[in-house]
Amino acid sequence: MPQPVNEFGLISKYFAPLADGYAGALGLKDDGALISVEFGYQIVVTCDAIVCGVHFRSEDRPEDVAARGLRVNLSDLAAMGACPVGYLLALAVPSGTDASWFERFSAQLASDQATYNVKLIGGDTVMTPGPLTLSITAFGQIPTGQALTRAGAKPGDKIFVSGNVGDALLGLKLLRGELGSVSASQAAALKNRFLRPEPRIALGQALIGVAHAVIDVSDGLIADIGHICTLANLGARLNISSVPLSLGARAVLGDVPDLLPNLLSAGDDYELVFTAPSSALETLSRISSDTGVMVTEIGEVVATPGVVVIGVGGDEVQMEASGYQHF
Amino acid sequence: MPQPVNEFGLISKYFAPLADGYAGALGLKDDGALISVEFGYQIVVTCDAIVCGVHFRSEDRPEDVAARGLRVNLSDLAAMGACPVGYLLALAVPSGTDASWFERFSAQLASDQATYNVKLIGGDTVMTPGPLTLSITAFGQIPTGQALTRAGAKPGDKIFVSGNVGDALLGLKLLRGELGSVSASQAAALKNRFLRPEPRIALGQALIGVAHAVIDVSDGLIADIGHICTLANLGARLNISSVPLSLGARAVLGDVPDLLPNLLSAGDDYELVFTAPSSALETLSRISSDTGVMVTEIGEVVATPGVVVIGVGGDEVQMEASGYQHF
Repeated sequence: MPQPVNEFGLISKYFAPLADGYAGALGLKDDGALISVEFGYQIVVTCDAIVCGVHFRSEDRPEDVAARGLRVNLSDLAAMGACPVGYLLALAVPSGTDASWFERFSAQLASDQATYNVKLIGGDTVMTPGPLTLSITAFGQIPTGQALTRAGAKPGDKIFVSGNVGDALLGLKLLRGELGSVSASQAAALKNRFLRPEPRIALGQALIGVAHAVIDVSDGLIADIGHICTLANLGARLNISSVPLSLGARAVLGDVPDLLPNLLSAGDDYELVFTAPSSALETLSRISSDTGVMVTEIGEVVATPGVVVIGVGGDEVQMEASGYQHF
Repeated sequence: MPQPVNEFGLISKYFAPLADGYAGALGLKDDGALISVEFGYQIVVTCDAIVCGVHFRSEDRPEDVAARGLRVNLSDLAAMGACPVGYLLALAVPSGTDASWFERFSAQLASDQATYNVKLIGGDTVMTPGPLTLSITAFGQIPTGQALTRAGAKPGDKIFVSGNVGDALLGLKLLRGELGSVSASQAAALKNRFLRPEPRIALGQALIGVAHAVIDVSDGLIADIGHICTLANLGARLNISSVPLSLGARAVLGDVPDLLPNLLSAGDDYELVFTAPSSALETLSRISSDTGVMVTEIGEVVATPGVVVIGVGGDEVQMEASGYQHF
């Protein structure tokens, strides 16, 4: 039988333990929290909200909601090269939500906190007559003046992406039952890529002083490269044949080749896309090896604004490159 | 005719101007924002979410929603003695929301930013099938180790409150049409106290080194005094006859005296309640004069746990002291 919950009970039972070990959280018992910053460091702060029915599905497990909510924020910190420290959680929950939901939700947060070395330091839990809405503000630290930004791309820079592109979209399609012919293990891997995005934290930090411009893929590969280009008033040439695809994605494309453009326009992969000079190639190879994250050169920055996609045959491909509009 | 809006247009038109003058906001164009902290200072951070239909009414104007969302957070910073610096705004908006709503909402934020000397530095705007939900994370700075907290009350401390108590509840009742016989000017003043809470920022900062424990009244006077007592494992005696009431509140109570207990249990006043030793009385008198904020002694901290309310005749009054449960 569902157990009733109240705000103070929720905080003491499920959330205060997540603040253990961060003295400035004041046990989540005060009006705010205290963040101390080492001399020579800045704070990097980012905020992402996710809404049930929009950014995740009502049938998603509380564990998946927790992981997604936290990790998309950590991905933003990664894209700036920051070392994650903590986060605040604003949770608007439907009144029917029972204790077991909070139990599972907070257990996943605890697990992710251990993985990514972050602590909950504050937040707010409120009731909503609407869908579950989760807003996280994450913060990290970085040596002053060293933050990676989306600006700074230079003509002639090579464009790189971490990991594989498009898996998250295929995972979502599998979860929706829109794709059939994939092996069970490949299907599980693709679904996991959607449900459990992997913030590229070590890679982001390693790119300090190496990359000129960095963004995480949340609007779609082409759109996010476009964001970098727009800020520098430059353009990009993206080679389709260089875009890294997982074995699972290749298997799907073998059956449904028309999906390729969708993979390049889909968000949710949370890989890092960045530009760096050719001279950085050797360094990037070492970084890839050190962090265990594949890094692939997929194009270059050019003077002419706009993102041009080059097909397998070397011709320009016309694509709808608007990317995901969050709103 | 309502104009369509999209995420990137919203950010550039309405929100990016609110970040002007804070370099670390990176024009709201990046994955995160950068906060620099002066040597010898800490960051104080707080987070409050408000939901349409729960924390404000669907008929409230966008200006009121903006002011409320920002000010309740600034009140938390005030209660810790921090100097406000900036905030992040996570906004989940129903899809039918038109451009004029954002125009008015952002104009009020701009006005409050000027009043309280803060800047928008980041956030997220997403669509929701549910009610408008606004989550703000505000941050300020404070000399390291100087933050006021809810802990630290000592036996024999006097208890003080800023401003008047209960106006916000009466304002809400007036807005709901639940109260009749108040003059137009008093009604306007009371409504304003609900719609536009006034964060006691200067007072909070002045209380550093003076107050032992501080909280802002958001759960209700008795409940919030209870929070302070619980953390110190102490109790309090609260003298009803000392509780400061506005002329408007006195006028209402003249007609409906039974409302007094409600005023002591109602949240939303966002006044500061704090404890300080008797020896601080003269200092507090000067602080009150300097900040232009009335400060009234309303009780004392005692060894026996629990909050005891002393009536006009000197007898203990039994009250329902649970306060506002946010969830």
